[in-house]
Amino acid sequence: MKLHSNPASPFGRKVKVIAYEKGLIDRISLHVLQTTAVGPDLGLVADNPLGKIPCLVLEDGAPLYDSRVICEYLDQLREAPQLFPESGPDRWDALRLQALGDGIMDAALLVRYETFLRPEALRWSAWVDGQLDKVHRGLDRIETVDASGFGGRVDIGTIAIACALGYLDFRFATMGWRETRPGLAEWFETFAERPSMQSTRPDA
Amino acid sequence: MKLHSNPASPFGRKVKVIAYEKGLIDRISLHVLQTTAVGPDLGLVADNPLGKIPCLVLEDGAPLYDSRVICEYLDQLREAPQLFPESGPDRWDALRLQALGDGIMDAALLVRYETFLRPEALRWSAWVDGQLDKVHRGLDRIETVDASGFGGRVDIGTIAIACALGYLDFRFATMGWRETRPGLAEWFETFAERPSMQSTRPDA
Repeated sequence: MKLHSNPASPFGRKVKVIAYEKGLIDRISLHVLQTTAVGPDLGLVADNPLGKIPCLVLEDGAPLYDSRVICEYLDQLREAPQLFPESGPDRWDALRLQALGDGIMDAALLVRYETFLRPEALRWSAWVDGQLDKVHRGLDRIETVDASGFGGRVDIGTIAIACALGYLDFRFATMGWRETRPGLAEWFETFAERPSMQSTRPDA
Repeated sequence: MKLHSNPASPFGRKVKVIAYEKGLIDRISLHVLQTTAVGPDLGLVADNPLGKIPCLVLEDGAPLYDSRVICEYLDQLREAPQLFPESGPDRWDALRLQALGDGIMDAALLVRYETFLRPEALRWSAWVDGQLDKVHRGLDRIETVDASGFGGRVDIGTIAIACALGYLDFRFATMGWRETRPGLAEWFETFAERPSMQSTRPDA
């Protein structure tokens, strides 16, 4: 299988973490590329017309996207460890957490586009503030409601949250998200030591 | 169950179409609200810290988001009709199609934010063009590869594509997407007649 991605992409990292946790990383060849909304990679768009990474190309040439679909696909290729709970409250909680992690990444990426890609004269501070509010409210919710139940849990929910936090550390290092979220910070310190996380650091 | 949404939201429509198709719409009370990235609804953010619609609140008060998670949750509440294929190639194709429909809606929404919400002096035409390119490449892919296999198929994949097309008709009526995509146009003409689609028209 071939994976279009980039080390800086938090969604690409989520897929790679899943592949490491499942012992599938050796079956995936990485195709590293640069792509943005205003300068898409042409090889990528042939597989994913949305021009977004990650995109997995299966052995028969069929493309799979986006990261959620790829992660669930990889999870069912091997039975253990099961990273998508099969049914019931565990499944809905894990999928909601993934949506929360993905939503934090989406908002952070929109801030990045606004403050890095867009010409300076066209930047809108209210947009940046609104997206950062999503990030902070999301982190507050995880700190006050979710993090106390994380423990040693490894599933698509906690992996997505970890990738979101890793992206904040990578691109928003001065944000200081740990200051008001000691529970989440403590959990992440341990989770980030997993080989799957260490092998996929965006700054490596 | 309570659904935070708005008639104009294509992601909210996807959830409502699923609820109609499953015969579950009577169990859902709609909470109609206005929300944007720069002016979030405070009742909504109490349930979904990302401040995004749709968000479903279950009978025990637990919130579910985003639309993909809600749609799959509703699908498993009743056995028939099964809108998320359980496994195998049918599941991956349906989920990839949903990702494509969602991606077209995301790109179209970003164009809408850029041309409607953002102050005129701060608009960036290359961003609009890049997002519209995603929409057009997505539609071209569906026309040339996917649409011929749609037939009478009703699942999360075709429903997502139909909601994306409905959103283009609603907000981008002059785009003329049908002109170069006769197969997709013909399929949508029939699909849009379904009671689930008629009952959820954004312009109703």
